Amino acid sequence: MNLFDEERRNPSEPDTEKETWVDRRTWLTGAVSMVGATAAGLLTPALLPAEEGESVRPTHVPGRSPSPYGVRAQGETVQRLPTATHSLTPHHALHGIITPSALHFERHHNGVPSINSDRHRLLIHGLVDRPLTFSMNDLVRFPSVTRTLFIECSGNSGKEWKGPTGTTVQETHGLMSTSEWTGVPLSTVLAEAGIKPDAVWMLAEGSDAAAMTRSLPLAELVNDALLCYAQNGEALRPEQGYPLRLVIPGWEGNTCIKWIRRLKLGTAPFMTREETSRYTDLMPDGTAKQFTFVMDTKSVITSPSGGQQIDPGFVEIRGLAWSGHGKIVMAEVSTDGGKSWHTAQLQEPVLPKCHTRFRFGWRWNGDETIIQSRCTDETGSIQPTRAALVAARGVHSFYHYHAIHSWRIDRRGAVTNGQV
Amino acid sequence: MNLFDEERRNPSEPDTEKETWVDRRTWLTGAVSMVGATAAGLLTPALLPAEEGESVRPTHVPGRSPSPYGVRAQGETVQRLPTATHSLTPHHALHGIITPSALHFERHHNGVPSINSDRHRLLIHGLVDRPLTFSMNDLVRFPSVTRTLFIECSGNSGKEWKGPTGTTVQETHGLMSTSEWTGVPLSTVLAEAGIKPDAVWMLAEGSDAAAMTRSLPLAELVNDALLCYAQNGEALRPEQGYPLRLVIPGWEGNTCIKWIRRLKLGTAPFMTREETSRYTDLMPDGTAKQFTFVMDTKSVITSPSGGQQIDPGFVEIRGLAWSGHGKIVMAEVSTDGGKSWHTAQLQEPVLPKCHTRFRFGWRWNGDETIIQSRCTDETGSIQPTRAALVAARGVHSFYHYHAIHSWRIDRRGAVTNGQV
Repeated sequence: MNLFDEERRNPSEPDTEKETWVDRRTWLTGAVSMVGATAAGLLTPALLPAEEGESVRPTHVPGRSPSPYGVRAQGETVQRLPTATHSLTPHHALHGIITPSALHFERHHNGVPSINSDRHRLLIHGLVDRPLTFSMNDLVRFPSVTRTLFIECSGNSGKEWKGPTGTTVQETHGLMSTSEWTGVPLSTVLAEAGIKPDAVWMLAEGSDAAAMTRSLPLAELVNDALLCYAQNGEALRPEQGYPLRLVIPGWEGNTCIKWIRRLKLGTAPFMTREETSRYTDLMPDGTAKQFTFVMDTKSVITSPSGGQQIDPGFVEIRGLAWSGHGKIVMAEVSTDGGKSWHTAQLQEPVLPKCHTRFRFGWRWNGDETIIQSRCTDETGSIQPTRAALVAARGVHSFYHYHAIHSWRIDRRGAVTNGQV
Repeated sequence: MNLFDEERRNPSEPDTEKETWVDRRTWLTGAVSMVGATAAGLLTPALLPAEEGESVRPTHVPGRSPSPYGVRAQGETVQRLPTATHSLTPHHALHGIITPSALHFERHHNGVPSINSDRHRLLIHGLVDRPLTFSMNDLVRFPSVTRTLFIECSGNSGKEWKGPTGTTVQETHGLMSTSEWTGVPLSTVLAEAGIKPDAVWMLAEGSDAAAMTRSLPLAELVNDALLCYAQNGEALRPEQGYPLRLVIPGWEGNTCIKWIRRLKLGTAPFMTREETSRYTDLMPDGTAKQFTFVMDTKSVITSPSGGQQIDPGFVEIRGLAWSGHGKIVMAEVSTDGGKSWHTAQLQEPVLPKCHTRFRFGWRWNGDETIIQSRCTDETGSIQPTRAALVAARGVHSFYHYHAIHSWRIDRRGAVTNGQV
């Protein structure tokens, strides 16, 4: 006996249950009941039974065979918005918390390098007992860890400092994504090299044409950071650092060095270009705040969101909440521009330093309004209003914008960036 | 100021830190230290620093631009093993618990239909108050739920009843995968139609050329089943039921009807082909056991596994454990053919009716041996030995094989199916 014998049905054979016509008639004459359901605000009456109007009925022709590596359905065209230096995740069209690897945001400083995994090496040197290099085969043999984590560019929503610049949630919040990351703890690899007592900072360098480098305070990351070789089950995608990426849970994406080839331990920050000319926050008094690593408590409604259209009646408000400090403990939704707040449902599992999906059932009465979300993390950090954030930080920053985001809904149900 | 101004470096510009040569020399003369590390059994000494031997150094040429929808790195060729009717997930090469959608196993009864999501309808009829159809737009508007769940074909490992047939874990355990599924609870949709009091069974029918149908006991699934439109964040893949799939957590994959177009409520099972000619278990006394829905407690070591090769020294044993009854509470590993067992580490989050990744650090001394895993779920169900399973079930079944799996390691480190 073999389960996998061919067992294709003759396409001309009638359906297993010969009731299609009866059921179709029942359904066609069921208009009164459907009106009842429609009155509940949930249903749009559908006039075509399954397959009606298809040029080829899918039940009448054998389908295609299994394949080695699947692709999306024809007609599914959700995509990142790419520019020369970055691309944005289409959160308005995504569900759950996992971002498909193909849609994970990108931010490159000199493009995506093409790296041969077999030849790639990680060098560890500086204030260590034994300078070492590791091949990918070496790293995969170490004890491994898997964590589902968000990565957010510190420039995510950055244009919102100046005003309601982004039209869609992809434009305002597309520089963040969540994946299941697998790799070896940084601490394990550093222990092999032996950390000298005076090593306080670590330089991390990528193998791209920007030789992207950041200085990182060792004590604050060494117990949490991972050198990752896998994303959502398979090898990292090229644009996410293939074959190896430093992932520091909760820290700004820029510190999660892609294509990582070198770690150097030292006594002071190395003052690279990416922490002098960029990745600092200009404060109201004109000073520049450096080394703001942890991404703050933040949330956004992904649906309904800018560019979408809603109808009166039931609307499930869906969004994402996250914090670089730890777990989200509460997400709230306002449907009256912040006058009143309702606790949203958090989808389990709620994981630290990871996107948390929240949902809130709402009945829209057709009036113009503004919808917002805010969240609180396990450290008690609450997402601020825009007014509070601007009062503290001014409007000259580009990075680390994390204020409450507003979507305006007009009387036609059109949703736009409603920054207030 | 704009974060995303072009900021490409001149490729002829020297590296930020001009120490490459020094460090390379330090590393090249660090052989003694590396021998020390190698003696710890963890390192294969690497003779090439990063980029050495590359025809084009990735740091010396600008990389490619961001893209709308990413693809794998060149050279990453892990794939499903496809036949005419199914394809197998390559668990030996995967990490964490999420199976990339492109590598989710397939099992079709007449191929993968091509369905237009806009025209697809779900019909609910039979013993309901109001026969209804739903478009995909209708379904997406309902309150939604996301769960990370395994789906396992009841034929997974089925050939192992007869003996050690599969060479690799892809062949022995490739008919299972885990995704993050999002959809609307079945109970929500059935409540719209109104379940009549005498409705006890539900017929679920797919829109493929097999018009795949199963009878399902309503009370046992109505609070847990989902009508799913999203997998790992994006729309279902065609081979996973695009645009709509019934997902019943923990039940045999065959009941998770793909391309679902019809639900009919009735008073008795509908006795379709897929529960008479197939998907029954032939018992030792010659009788056939029907309607075994829940997939039992099971685990397998995915690495090292059949076809792989290990070296003496540290080896991290990695595997998956799962149960259709609920959460895994313990996974154990034996490295002496089942004489002694060690508790493995479970990777958080441990979710009900979902793959759980386990790991166990082992030092292989180079002797021939057999490695095994077994698991226990929250209901107290323990994965049986092959001998115990065969004693209870005989060897005439094809479905629901869930015995402890053995991998034999020979003195050269080669791993083969070691069924004992």
